[in-house]
Amino acid sequence: MSFSLFEKILDPSQIVSGQELESRYHHIWHMDEPLKAICLLTPASTDEVSSIMKICYEHNLPVVVHGGLTNLVGSTETYGNEVVISTERLNSIEEIDGSSRTMTVQSGVILEHIHEAAANTDLLFPLNFGARGSAQIGGIISTNAGGLRVLKYGMTRQLILGLEAVMVDGTIISSMKKIIKDNSAYDVKQLFIGSEGTLGIVTKAILKLEEAPSSRNAAYIGFNNYENVVAFLKYMDSNLAGKLSGFELIWRNSYEQMTSVSNAVRPPLPYDYNYYVLIEALGSHPQIDHAEFQSLLEDAIEQDRILDAVMAQSPSDIEWFFRIREDVNNLVDFMKHDQHFDISLPIPFIGDYIADRYQSLAQIDGVEQIYAFGHVADGNIHFMIGKSNLNDDLKKKIDHCIYDGLKAIGGSVSAEHGIGTHKKDYLNLCRTPEEIVLMKALKLTMDPKGLLNPGKIF
Amino acid sequence: MSFSLFEKILDPSQIVSGQELESRYHHIWHMDEPLKAICLLTPASTDEVSSIMKICYEHNLPVVVHGGLTNLVGSTETYGNEVVISTERLNSIEEIDGSSRTMTVQSGVILEHIHEAAANTDLLFPLNFGARGSAQIGGIISTNAGGLRVLKYGMTRQLILGLEAVMVDGTIISSMKKIIKDNSAYDVKQLFIGSEGTLGIVTKAILKLEEAPSSRNAAYIGFNNYENVVAFLKYMDSNLAGKLSGFELIWRNSYEQMTSVSNAVRPPLPYDYNYYVLIEALGSHPQIDHAEFQSLLEDAIEQDRILDAVMAQSPSDIEWFFRIREDVNNLVDFMKHDQHFDISLPIPFIGDYIADRYQSLAQIDGVEQIYAFGHVADGNIHFMIGKSNLNDDLKKKIDHCIYDGLKAIGGSVSAEHGIGTHKKDYLNLCRTPEEIVLMKALKLTMDPKGLLNPGKIF
Repeated sequence: MSFSLFEKILDPSQIVSGQELESRYHHIWHMDEPLKAICLLTPASTDEVSSIMKICYEHNLPVVVHGGLTNLVGSTETYGNEVVISTERLNSIEEIDGSSRTMTVQSGVILEHIHEAAANTDLLFPLNFGARGSAQIGGIISTNAGGLRVLKYGMTRQLILGLEAVMVDGTIISSMKKIIKDNSAYDVKQLFIGSEGTLGIVTKAILKLEEAPSSRNAAYIGFNNYENVVAFLKYMDSNLAGKLSGFELIWRNSYEQMTSVSNAVRPPLPYDYNYYVLIEALGSHPQIDHAEFQSLLEDAIEQDRILDAVMAQSPSDIEWFFRIREDVNNLVDFMKHDQHFDISLPIPFIGDYIADRYQSLAQIDGVEQIYAFGHVADGNIHFMIGKSNLNDDLKKKIDHCIYDGLKAIGGSVSAEHGIGTHKKDYLNLCRTPEEIVLMKALKLTMDPKGLLNPGKIF
Repeated sequence: MSFSLFEKILDPSQIVSGQELESRYHHIWHMDEPLKAICLLTPASTDEVSSIMKICYEHNLPVVVHGGLTNLVGSTETYGNEVVISTERLNSIEEIDGSSRTMTVQSGVILEHIHEAAANTDLLFPLNFGARGSAQIGGIISTNAGGLRVLKYGMTRQLILGLEAVMVDGTIISSMKKIIKDNSAYDVKQLFIGSEGTLGIVTKAILKLEEAPSSRNAAYIGFNNYENVVAFLKYMDSNLAGKLSGFELIWRNSYEQMTSVSNAVRPPLPYDYNYYVLIEALGSHPQIDHAEFQSLLEDAIEQDRILDAVMAQSPSDIEWFFRIREDVNNLVDFMKHDQHFDISLPIPFIGDYIADRYQSLAQIDGVEQIYAFGHVADGNIHFMIGKSNLNDDLKKKIDHCIYDGLKAIGGSVSAEHGIGTHKKDYLNLCRTPEEIVLMKALKLTMDPKGLLNPGKIF
């Protein structure tokens, strides 16, 4: 079995193997491991992906799709016996339709390029997160990515109007519609969103664009107790109508570390509070919105809803405020080894749950740093744990400390990153046995030979 | 085979059959046909639904679920050999969680009761449409209902955080989470949303609530050409940031009929224009929002974006404005027989497509009235056709006139009502053969004996 099978359908330049493969390609975000695979293919069209899959299906070749490799949970790992399909040449923005407010893209287009293309027509693709310069839309769809503005605009699932995917046997499922409402039988595209490449390969999508906002306001707020954070979220959301776009919570010690590394991330508020919230609003009237935002904060201080607030006074202030939250390297760089988490849990439980984890983690031998922060309006908290060694026993102790309480309170071991290989052992903590049986039945129906991204999720 | 099978698991009062069945129950919205079925069961819990399904599965009994029967496409039709499960006793609102902003409900709760319960805690369940006094949330979920505020808040799919459903063999799939982000493997609840009861029976849901708005503004606007309607949608949406909640388009002759029946629906604008738009915005600052809305309309007139506008000056004005749009009886009551449509198509095509249909429909012998109106921001247009007879040939002529052009422009024969029995013949106009093969594979996996709502969709 070899890569020569693909020479009939692809140009030699689209087939990478051997030495070139190992020297030029990787399989996960940490770029220190060379890619092991039968070959890597770079199709440029849905038809080429379909032809590749027909061959793989006939010859029982496992397939892993590689986009920007930013998934963080091992969803793109290979073992050596796979054909890797890279989406790097599926990189065309095919159309922007200003009246329908849609963008049609191939799956290899990088998120930042989508942002730029939308902005050039005064529109916005609102999905946004730190890895926007690398993450490709196909991977974003396959993992149903979330990020910083879910509160206002929703997860990826809410932003996909049309989708094209290739099934394991090469069949092309084309659901490429520009319409918001389409209740004509089962919405099959939902199956490809968030299934991490295990049910089909996304090749194209029609994205829902929004009108671009013309005002952006942001502030850091200080709190000493969690109940006030939740009350303030309701206060701001109800007063800002549809404008509240971000509500990020940072625990005190995380804030201290995030703001002490360089002048570029100097602290906007002093180290006096237990919780720091970074809040963002997007509107359409710069002056009115700025005044409204400011007066809401002033009222909140007067009414003892919050202890302290500092509002960004310029675009560069806003950049500074977000740099603090987004540059997680300022946490990780000072760790010997890091282990990160992406849990979600109902908003009322977050305060106590995270406080308890801080306590228990501190008692684990080998844990050196504990940082918590996250998208609290979405119930999504990230933990970054620094540890002294890569011992598997230590890793599992930390996993269990963070995950084991989630089942009882209806939480999830993955809010936005997915399951991949890293969280397979913990899927049963947030899904019932009946749900998992149903998932496996769907997998068997759509990938009977188990060739699509094998070893992931289950 | 008889209803006595269910006497082991249900109280006699929960089993309706024979004369009582035919005299008290119906199977579709037009309440003129008595219900034909083996029996009608009224379970009060998910466990009772599960027990019923175990018996039905063992004895190969087809099952149809009845909620408010408001679906309009025959999704709840029976033929006589089915067990009907009525959700009328699954009518409990189990919890409202103000901090999580969620409501947990059984599937038989009526939409209007959900609205009232949310309002009592200063929250909003935004889904809204004319049948809110009858439609139950289980049916709403099963059809992924849309309605008047999709523009701001999304379809039903976007408002469901958690779901519980019973599979054909009685297995309970419980995905009852309150969290907005949960990327832990496949999102199986998506399968039950919009599949019209053919893949499982929804018994419970966790609904996403929003902060209740405190301001509501509305206006009627007049236009003579469709391009200006689309440009005005963009103008209002970009200026109102997240506040634009409704943008309904009414064709001139529909507006004339809707506003000429009684003083309660008197015309807010004269009959001088080709298109009338009803626009709504929801905000949080009554005075500021009113002034902003008014000044946007004034600017629009000055800039020749619109020809005329009248803004609601009181809550009773708003009620009057919406009564015109919502009371479709004012159209139907004057028809001998009616045939209605619920198509969607990309926004740029709507003007020409609907104009063409008006022309071609007028040439069909037996067509007496033609009215078009709809949720233009969602690409969703309704047609109400009055006709002289119930001849099947006439029905099909009208169907083809409206549906046949949709495929070429990427439209759908069902925007929000579903396929049911009425649109089965036209599914292939808006779904590819490959999509339909995949749908049938899913149906076979999840309902191998074909017992769930047989004869619907396919």
